[in-house]
Amino acid sequence: MRERHLFGPGPSNPYPEATRALAEPLLGHLDPEFLRIMDETCEMLRTVWGTSNARTLPLSATGSAGMEAAFVNTVHPGDVVVVAVNGLFGQRMTDVAARCGAEVIAVEHEWGQPVDVDRVLSAHPSPAIIAAVHAETSTGVRSDIAALGAGKGDALLLVDAVTSIAGVELRADDWGIDLGYAGTQKCLGVAPGLAPFTINDRAFERRVEKPRSWYLDLGMLGGYVGEAGLKEGGKAQRTYHHTAPTAMVASLHAGLTRILDEGLDAVWARHQAAGDALQTGLEAMGLELFAAEGHRLPDLTTVKVPEGVDSAAVRRELLERYDLEIGAGAGAYAASVWRIGLMGHNARPDAVLLVLAALADVLGRA
Amino acid sequence: MRERHLFGPGPSNPYPEATRALAEPLLGHLDPEFLRIMDETCEMLRTVWGTSNARTLPLSATGSAGMEAAFVNTVHPGDVVVVAVNGLFGQRMTDVAARCGAEVIAVEHEWGQPVDVDRVLSAHPSPAIIAAVHAETSTGVRSDIAALGAGKGDALLLVDAVTSIAGVELRADDWGIDLGYAGTQKCLGVAPGLAPFTINDRAFERRVEKPRSWYLDLGMLGGYVGEAGLKEGGKAQRTYHHTAPTAMVASLHAGLTRILDEGLDAVWARHQAAGDALQTGLEAMGLELFAAEGHRLPDLTTVKVPEGVDSAAVRRELLERYDLEIGAGAGAYAASVWRIGLMGHNARPDAVLLVLAALADVLGRA
Repeated sequence: MRERHLFGPGPSNPYPEATRALAEPLLGHLDPEFLRIMDETCEMLRTVWGTSNARTLPLSATGSAGMEAAFVNTVHPGDVVVVAVNGLFGQRMTDVAARCGAEVIAVEHEWGQPVDVDRVLSAHPSPAIIAAVHAETSTGVRSDIAALGAGKGDALLLVDAVTSIAGVELRADDWGIDLGYAGTQKCLGVAPGLAPFTINDRAFERRVEKPRSWYLDLGMLGGYVGEAGLKEGGKAQRTYHHTAPTAMVASLHAGLTRILDEGLDAVWARHQAAGDALQTGLEAMGLELFAAEGHRLPDLTTVKVPEGVDSAAVRRELLERYDLEIGAGAGAYAASVWRIGLMGHNARPDAVLLVLAALADVLGRA
Repeated sequence: MRERHLFGPGPSNPYPEATRALAEPLLGHLDPEFLRIMDETCEMLRTVWGTSNARTLPLSATGSAGMEAAFVNTVHPGDVVVVAVNGLFGQRMTDVAARCGAEVIAVEHEWGQPVDVDRVLSAHPSPAIIAAVHAETSTGVRSDIAALGAGKGDALLLVDAVTSIAGVELRADDWGIDLGYAGTQKCLGVAPGLAPFTINDRAFERRVEKPRSWYLDLGMLGGYVGEAGLKEGGKAQRTYHHTAPTAMVASLHAGLTRILDEGLDAVWARHQAAGDALQTGLEAMGLELFAAEGHRLPDLTTVKVPEGVDSAAVRRELLERYDLEIGAGAGAYAASVWRIGLMGHNARPDAVLLVLAALADVLGRA
């Protein structure tokens, strides 16, 4: 098996603790030991989300299922859903929301730009939901979620935090996020397979009573993570819903423990430092960054492929010579942009040096 | 971390190879090495399903999501779906199918009995779908899927193989199964988290063009596993759908490799021998089996809790004294039935001896 440097848009190389946890003896999904791990995982997820929401849990599927869970549980047929589209994942939201029966109003942006808060907030006088991506994985852009929260009025604010959670500042409660989803395979430093999810009482009370998805029905998932117990402060009472992916949850527990041992502020600062150094280095190499200045994510950097350079050939060379993966661009930018992620365990000075040196070598700019 | 004997209805203790694979260096979901692993995994899944279906793949969620994928992709609003209900998972099918807009005809059976093929086939003159559970995890009963396939007429036959795959005889193509789903955490001997899925051309052609689920949309998932390439016999062409859970897929690959190295017939025989020995031993201890004679699964045995015995206390004692997990009953049988699984790596003579000795000790029947 090849050992790769995973410097693309995710998955990233997991924290070593998260990998080791995968190889620990497996626990049953109703084992008291596992229930303790699940409880602690939910509690640590509250911290990285910046929320006190009782309903904070790892859904048993990847981040894209988190997106589906968010819409399928809150969109009533005919609801107006305003979606800020400034990249691939905003686009995907419009598809997912429409399948749930929403009347979707897509507020389109040029890719590489952050969400225009005024335009989004004035797109409809009284939407049921306003949806936006905090950190667009397709473009490397960060948007101002707090401003959306401040102006949302009666709407629910639904946020994609897949590429921001545990990498950059995220404060769900302070910013007015009513529900959101993330993934494990980026700054959380865990393998892909789970979708950390949170929903507050306001959104939960407006939920669809019997959503079209059984698997992602939050009304039933409450029992699965012992919601009753959490609310009463007593011992969690579990009801069987589906078999929890116990190895993955144990791994997420280990990754979160590592992150909170380091401290969330320190982890954010580490990502910022790595991203700053990478972006400075790329520009020093004569490369041009893609994301709008002032709105660049530190954990995921987008860079324009120089004129005349074969994007795929460079990526292949990096993989073959150095076992180093970077990502192609997304959508229309597949061949003209590279995406370089320094996430979770990879947000380190040595990773910055390595990716800069490897890219310089392959581009002949050393 | 406690090391448990997982002798409940699943998860079972994984094959050691499957656990080791989880701890291997993580690969990106578009890495050529990973695409090879995914291709081989799909090919090995065809073998354990007994199918040549091109569309055979591990869905990125647990077995219950496999059930949802089966219905959400094939139920058109108003379709008549006949469901054979002889346990919890048949019941669940009725809920999932109804959420997809089906007109559900539930053919109810006493729990512990196999599916009555005549009753199911005569429940409606021309259903769109006939759905049944091959191996009911809630009762330990095996039903005759081949007979349903022989009599299905124009209907699609939709089968739950969660507790049969890689444990007992399963021949999807020979038996007329049009689509089916399974789970990794039972006889496949891998941690929970994936749903091996298969669908033939006949069912795929009748699918819902734009199903209500984006995440489980089989029309989009074809590209994800390189369906175009598979059909043309050329190199798989991938389109990005969602980030594959690469660690779990690598682990499934390792489990399947182990199973096929041993040989599927030998694996089935090993499960049969372990189940026979366990059931003989339980009856020799004076215990009564729950599932109807002649229809008992070897890999999952149900046994009645003796009069006056506290079911939960026995399970707790087994866990505390011997780190040995067995399952409670399901539904109305929670306190009156135990479920003992000897699945995958646990289908061994030493596991039979251990569980019999431990149970005898705790029950005071040694």
